Amino acid sequence: MTLSHRITTLTPDGDDGWGLFYRSRQMIAAGEPVTELTIGEHDIRTDASILEAMHRAAAGGHTGYASVPGTPALRQAVADRISQRTGVATTPDNVLITPGGQAGLFAAHMAVLNPGDTAGYIDPYYTTYPGTLRGAGAVPLPITTRAAQNFQPQAEDLRALKGAASLLVNSPNNPTGVIYDAATMGAIAAAAQEHDLWLISDEVYDTQVWEGAHISPRALPGMASRTLVVGSMSKSHAMTGSRIGWVVGPTEAIAHMTNLATHTTYGVPGYIQDAAVFALGEGEALEEKIAAPFRRRRAIAAKALAGQNVVRALPAMGAMYLMLDIRATGLSGAEFGERLLDTHRIAVMPGESFGTSAAGHIRVAMTTDDAAFEAALHTLVAFAQGLA
Amino acid sequence: MTLSHRITTLTPDGDDGWGLFYRSRQMIAAGEPVTELTIGEHDIRTDASILEAMHRAAAGGHTGYASVPGTPALRQAVADRISQRTGVATTPDNVLITPGGQAGLFAAHMAVLNPGDTAGYIDPYYTTYPGTLRGAGAVPLPITTRAAQNFQPQAEDLRALKGAASLLVNSPNNPTGVIYDAATMGAIAAAAQEHDLWLISDEVYDTQVWEGAHISPRALPGMASRTLVVGSMSKSHAMTGSRIGWVVGPTEAIAHMTNLATHTTYGVPGYIQDAAVFALGEGEALEEKIAAPFRRRRAIAAKALAGQNVVRALPAMGAMYLMLDIRATGLSGAEFGERLLDTHRIAVMPGESFGTSAAGHIRVAMTTDDAAFEAALHTLVAFAQGLA
Repeated sequence: MTLSHRITTLTPDGDDGWGLFYRSRQMIAAGEPVTELTIGEHDIRTDASILEAMHRAAAGGHTGYASVPGTPALRQAVADRISQRTGVATTPDNVLITPGGQAGLFAAHMAVLNPGDTAGYIDPYYTTYPGTLRGAGAVPLPITTRAAQNFQPQAEDLRALKGAASLLVNSPNNPTGVIYDAATMGAIAAAAQEHDLWLISDEVYDTQVWEGAHISPRALPGMASRTLVVGSMSKSHAMTGSRIGWVVGPTEAIAHMTNLATHTTYGVPGYIQDAAVFALGEGEALEEKIAAPFRRRRAIAAKALAGQNVVRALPAMGAMYLMLDIRATGLSGAEFGERLLDTHRIAVMPGESFGTSAAGHIRVAMTTDDAAFEAALHTLVAFAQGLA
Repeated sequence: MTLSHRITTLTPDGDDGWGLFYRSRQMIAAGEPVTELTIGEHDIRTDASILEAMHRAAAGGHTGYASVPGTPALRQAVADRISQRTGVATTPDNVLITPGGQAGLFAAHMAVLNPGDTAGYIDPYYTTYPGTLRGAGAVPLPITTRAAQNFQPQAEDLRALKGAASLLVNSPNNPTGVIYDAATMGAIAAAAQEHDLWLISDEVYDTQVWEGAHISPRALPGMASRTLVVGSMSKSHAMTGSRIGWVVGPTEAIAHMTNLATHTTYGVPGYIQDAAVFALGEGEALEEKIAAPFRRRRAIAAKALAGQNVVRALPAMGAMYLMLDIRATGLSGAEFGERLLDTHRIAVMPGESFGTSAAGHIRVAMTTDDAAFEAALHTLVAFAQGLA
């Protein structure tokens, strides 16, 4: 009678640098004035109009079990959105509604991996990725990328996928803010086809595109039959706490994933799904309103970081983060972060929290008000200059 | 590139008699007047006061990521409830909040089973059980029980658990309506200790007790360290669609399950947790109000079934179901159900849908208004008498 191997070895590397995050939260709880630039959560709340729609649905009686794969209306709305944004014909039968993007990531890997299978992912990576793959019984295989190539995986990097069963990609990318260009996505699609992989494409930042264009790899030739796209209302509609997302993929995969969902979650609250239908119905105007603060702060950051070369910003093409190279200070990302928090009460994430590829970097979430954000960046630059 | 073995073999037995359920739903959708006595969902909606509490929390700003293991307030409320109801000292660190009882069942089995482990469960069983165990990579082992013993598993039945890793029990029981007595629970605890099993105790019907008393096996000597209790607001508070439940267990198990939850669901909406805190705060008065219709209909059924012996009712001790033995008609539960639906537009579940032990039985959910329920039972008895 012991706990399972999978659960006790889910995160063998321990806190992966999240100690800094927890320390900043403790300081805030103790009343210290910390500028919090760690995690990817909007500084606004879910729009009141969405919450009113939710309450109308609940008060109107949509409080019983909802259909496990999702309400017909939300599956249709997601299918329409994906069809319109990517050009790939998508029907409700291609859509499974999940209780959030993370649940979608887990379900997708449960659906395509057998225990012991090798599952690739790109390093730097969103923190939950390796544990999600381990939770599904797989052996995680990180594909290392390089800052000098803006963390875009290269065709030669992807050769390591020989013998793997799946590859997980994320563009626009957390933590790097990079959007994979056509060459990168083409190499990814080619590798998926050459090595007969399932491609799992985490596209939760698809409305946060500041430069270039988001390419969904499902839209590339031959890819729709082997791609599962994970989406969410969290980032696009500031609905993080509502835990509402989806997986889009081949109908047979979605049918089996619906059966899995019957046994793992039994569906998603109907009134939250109704709220999501309402929010999607508001169209790009609402999405742009949610994205605008990050677009604005990205411009603020460009100004604040200009005229020096101690802190070098990766091109911030999308998502709500800046990835800053602080190697000129001689510190690791973790050391830099600890000292910045201690001396200036500014909390950022060490690059090392997101894998080995982003060592010597820090991730700055653009999730505080413009003035505080601008002041924090000036302080951060002066701090780095003092070290260099 | 194929779908995983686990997902394609999750439910090898196909629809297990749920064809009848889907057919009745189609008839209703087509406008036919069907008396729907199939699934365990209240004929009332979630109480308006609970929905108002939810909206207050959401409109008040509780729309961001909630703490993954649950809000401190809800973990405390659940701990207090379990302490009070079972006498076992329970703290918030013993509680993981999950998106519904089904997610709790899955998480509990993920936490204690390695792939290939044998996982026991009692037949007749709630439909998702074997697939839930398979989803966690286990080999399901049904423990057969007998109508003549009111489907209470006997000590000798439990010997089959030698070599297993876990046992899943459910009292008050769906589908049988039986509550395990002290002798049964004692035998279960003894078997768990003898075979060094984890015991997973599904107690989602713990407020629906019509006769006798609910015993939580976690309260038996030596059992708290090896028991994971799954609970939910679905049945007790008519919050089925809100997907809010919990797992209660040893702190180490809960800590690891929190890590698993970070990778499988990333928590539960904060405003739903606030609504659950409100609902639990209403105490037994609200629980009794939710349970009252089933208590009333159980009495109606006793009258409707009196004075004949073609349809024999198992003692309906708890939960929202009647298990009726229709073997005197010479039909299987499935045949009886199909013909009852065809000829009288009454939909019930065949006992065969819940395993082999309940063959020749039907499960009647007490989930329609009293008059329609009473009329349906009279029709059902007359139909059975015509066959016998």
